[in-house]
Amino acid sequence: MKLRVDLLPHGQYPDVVVVVDVLRATTSAVAYLERGAEALLLTRTPEVALALRGGGGEYVLGGERGGLPIPGFDFGNSPVEAGTQNFTGKTVVMNTTNGTGAAHVAAQSGKHVLLAALTNAHAAARRARALATEGIAIVCAGTDARVGLDDVYTAGVLAEYLLAMGEFELDDGARIALTVRRGGGNPLEALGGSAHGLHLADLGLGADVQFAAGLSISTVVPTLAGGGDIPAETLKFVAG
Amino acid sequence: MKLRVDLLPHGQYPDVVVVVDVLRATTSAVAYLERGAEALLLTRTPEVALALRGGGGEYVLGGERGGLPIPGFDFGNSPVEAGTQNFTGKTVVMNTTNGTGAAHVAAQSGKHVLLAALTNAHAAARRARALATEGIAIVCAGTDARVGLDDVYTAGVLAEYLLAMGEFELDDGARIALTVRRGGGNPLEALGGSAHGLHLADLGLGADVQFAAGLSISTVVPTLAGGGDIPAETLKFVAG
Repeated sequence: MKLRVDLLPHGQYPDVVVVVDVLRATTSAVAYLERGAEALLLTRTPEVALALRGGGGEYVLGGERGGLPIPGFDFGNSPVEAGTQNFTGKTVVMNTTNGTGAAHVAAQSGKHVLLAALTNAHAAARRARALATEGIAIVCAGTDARVGLDDVYTAGVLAEYLLAMGEFELDDGARIALTVRRGGGNPLEALGGSAHGLHLADLGLGADVQFAAGLSISTVVPTLAGGGDIPAETLKFVAG
Repeated sequence: MKLRVDLLPHGQYPDVVVVVDVLRATTSAVAYLERGAEALLLTRTPEVALALRGGGGEYVLGGERGGLPIPGFDFGNSPVEAGTQNFTGKTVVMNTTNGTGAAHVAAQSGKHVLLAALTNAHAAARRARALATEGIAIVCAGTDARVGLDDVYTAGVLAEYLLAMGEFELDDGARIALTVRRGGGNPLEALGGSAHGLHLADLGLGADVQFAAGLSISTVVPTLAGGGDIPAETLKFVAG
């Protein structure tokens, strides 16, 4: 089985694609589902998210641009904030700077698309391994088309779990991610020292970085769901 | 001073840009100049290279596509082959799959553009440090728009030399490259184990990989030259 890590989204994925945007979209996605959300709708643009609510549905909007909340949204893509809320029965509509775009790239070719963070890393790796027949691609969202140390480190953690579950043929990206995981200190050091981690700390969002560094504290794996009831330009993820 | 490593070409460079395509374009570039070439012309496409020779100039053509020589070219982008020739007084026209394109991206915004490989790493780092006033960007060419372990390792070697020469503020790419350098074994292990190194070995070009792993054996630094006599869609590099 092949294991590939894209340090930035590249496309043309095998049957299982695992999307990582650890600061903070995929960490928040896990948190929303942990707190009872029925589903997540990842939209291509903030406008699509706002239009969905205009349609009268039972939607809660979460998202950010450059780390800051989007005007008109209810929540700011913060896993800590999500943890204080009860989303039971609600659908959370998400739009973020990098993570939601990476998920859309993944969904163009991947058959099974999962969202992974450090918080659900072990469960995500196990799920990916169980679903894969051809290969697994881990896709780092990056930050504004630049490679992010936070995502590469997280991909390395996922790769390490996968290697403990079976044999894989590794591409260069997987080798790089594993080396970064092994030489990059503990999760909080790696996330806190990344450019994106420093930026969030500057915005007063250091608690989110700390939360995101919690390793395998959740078994929820947001999983792309099909079906006819999904609005255009959105991807629906449910707890798996 | 800032030190940035682009794991793939990204654009918008500071005053000094160092382009790395260690397997094999930048290693061959150093070798051509070591063997007496007066200048290198890096063309955007193979057609531009072939047209130059049609113009009657004293040109020698070197290049590859997918590792194989380009029909009509004299040489196949092999540093070992280059080492057996005498290029005194000649201009070598180069076109390769990834490296020449990365150099063109670098030249769009960088003021000083240098070509670096492992073979000239120490000299290239010293030159970059001497020229820089704002910052240094090391640009990995990658392979077919994918991050290459060979180039990232080489960027880490350059970054390590630079850190020994002064203080730098590192971006995520630089941190990743340094970690890969430190955890990636010796140069031959890193290059030989990369996807591109394995591909070249499959093509019977393992001797080029071995040659490219020679650390700081040359003090030649191919340096972008200005001036009015440069054909369109080409970049001229001279020994610096």
